[in-house]
Amino acid sequence: MSQSYEKVALIGLGLIASSMFWAMKRGGLVGEVRGYARSGETRDTAREIGLCDVVCDSVAEAVKDADLVVLCVPVGAMGAVAAEIAPHLKAGATVSDVGSVKKAVIDAVGPHLPENVYFIAAHPLAGTEHSGPRSGFAELFDNRYTLLVPAEGTPLEAVAALRDLWEGMGAKVEEMDAEHHDLVLGVTSHAPHLIAYTMVGVADDLRRVTDSEVIKYSAAGFRDFTRIAASDPTMWRDVFLNNKEATLEILGRFTEELFALQRAIRTGDGEMLHAYFTRTRAIRRGIIEAGQDTDAPDFGRVKKEPSKS
Amino acid sequence: MSQSYEKVALIGLGLIASSMFWAMKRGGLVGEVRGYARSGETRDTAREIGLCDVVCDSVAEAVKDADLVVLCVPVGAMGAVAAEIAPHLKAGATVSDVGSVKKAVIDAVGPHLPENVYFIAAHPLAGTEHSGPRSGFAELFDNRYTLLVPAEGTPLEAVAALRDLWEGMGAKVEEMDAEHHDLVLGVTSHAPHLIAYTMVGVADDLRRVTDSEVIKYSAAGFRDFTRIAASDPTMWRDVFLNNKEATLEILGRFTEELFALQRAIRTGDGEMLHAYFTRTRAIRRGIIEAGQDTDAPDFGRVKKEPSKS
Repeated sequence: MSQSYEKVALIGLGLIASSMFWAMKRGGLVGEVRGYARSGETRDTAREIGLCDVVCDSVAEAVKDADLVVLCVPVGAMGAVAAEIAPHLKAGATVSDVGSVKKAVIDAVGPHLPENVYFIAAHPLAGTEHSGPRSGFAELFDNRYTLLVPAEGTPLEAVAALRDLWEGMGAKVEEMDAEHHDLVLGVTSHAPHLIAYTMVGVADDLRRVTDSEVIKYSAAGFRDFTRIAASDPTMWRDVFLNNKEATLEILGRFTEELFALQRAIRTGDGEMLHAYFTRTRAIRRGIIEAGQDTDAPDFGRVKKEPSKS
Repeated sequence: MSQSYEKVALIGLGLIASSMFWAMKRGGLVGEVRGYARSGETRDTAREIGLCDVVCDSVAEAVKDADLVVLCVPVGAMGAVAAEIAPHLKAGATVSDVGSVKKAVIDAVGPHLPENVYFIAAHPLAGTEHSGPRSGFAELFDNRYTLLVPAEGTPLEAVAALRDLWEGMGAKVEEMDAEHHDLVLGVTSHAPHLIAYTMVGVADDLRRVTDSEVIKYSAAGFRDFTRIAASDPTMWRDVFLNNKEATLEILGRFTEELFALQRAIRTGDGEMLHAYFTRTRAIRRGIIEAGQDTDAPDFGRVKKEPSKS
């Protein structure tokens, strides 16, 4: 693996940044990794657990001399952070991010960056319901996709270097345009998350079923929803506010379908229900065959001890 | 563990029945277990894998002399099976079931049974997305709840014996009335399953996102939905048709909440979204503290080799 980046800066030290750090160290992919987090408590934790070679107390110190700067903050904070780092970026550096929406991030970050810097937006399709600097692990990206959205005119070598890095961290890498990214992720991630949040909220509200019953008797369906609905509130608020159009479109389609199924239940149309459920079962098979899940219940969610070498 | 039941009959040999067999054998809880399945193929598979001490080719042969008969067929088939077994039941036998709805099953089964037989409806809150005789494993019920709904006037000893058996299979047992059961499960299981089925169906329909993209880029949220939506179509059709009222009520509440969240997205009300997501995150903590899930990603889904001793 070529060390395309001698110095890397991670801005924001949550689940994704910390997993990137352990994954870069596991592969010996880069030279020095500097980290910065706005919260002093997070910086203290990072120092305590050895997260990053150097934890900096200012964002300027972190990005200075960096060949690659990765913004690992909530989508809503990307613009402000870009403005803050811009004056300190090295000429020829690559700036990237890990946000779950791409069009809004590109619109927010792009205008702040100097011309002699390359912005290549990125989105690793990996995560757990945990957050914070302690939640990361080196294997998070293994065999998962990372989508790159390079700005027009970005030199091929710059894109290739970032691709190399992500592949070194275990990911499969593809390029996509921002709008299509936001639609695809709206379907596969954003709408499902909102739906899970909603269902868990309904359960909590229902007066005739006590909270303790919901909790005691939470069967498989609901348990999975609560795990999804335990994801970081700030991150997800920002995702929905910054991928409004696609999310609302998909939710509209969802509501239509839900009404059709509700009607089938009300009218006792068992054939319609059976056919629908048979079709969705087949989709699951497609996902397993595509290697994005396995029958193993812990696929993509195994946290091993951070490999520090 | 007292062997309250010398002879047990399992009618229907899918995930739950096969797990019950292995769990009963693991604990040495009963004498002989006879099994029956309507499909000859299922009976052949059962014989091949040693599922049940005796696999019978008629339901009459299976239930004859049984001290306990457990109906492990889809909810919609319970009434017909009850009518079929009724003439062959031993006086003083207990009949139970494992259906996911209780009021409809009690209404369907009760009238067919002779007076000298006790009907104690039951529902183990455990399962996976797999089905069929090969999908069972002895640990499925460990530390999960099984809810009992005894008919009025059932002798305490009969209820105690069934409770003992389920506890011997690893379950925590509670009693509940049928209507409340159906409402609680509507919230924690039935509505979430319908929602997952719907979302997976929407993804499959969306023209501008290809199936292969949905499959390749299925991130955490959607992957969990596809697993839920891969559950047995016949079982779930019957659940929804037989728990109409509670399911439709909860879906009504769900739609209301979803509209409120969609409105917050549309109007950019980040505070509302953040507060909502923070509340749902707390519910997850409650479930983990109640011991119904753990941080371990494979909780309740580990399939070990069937223990045949």
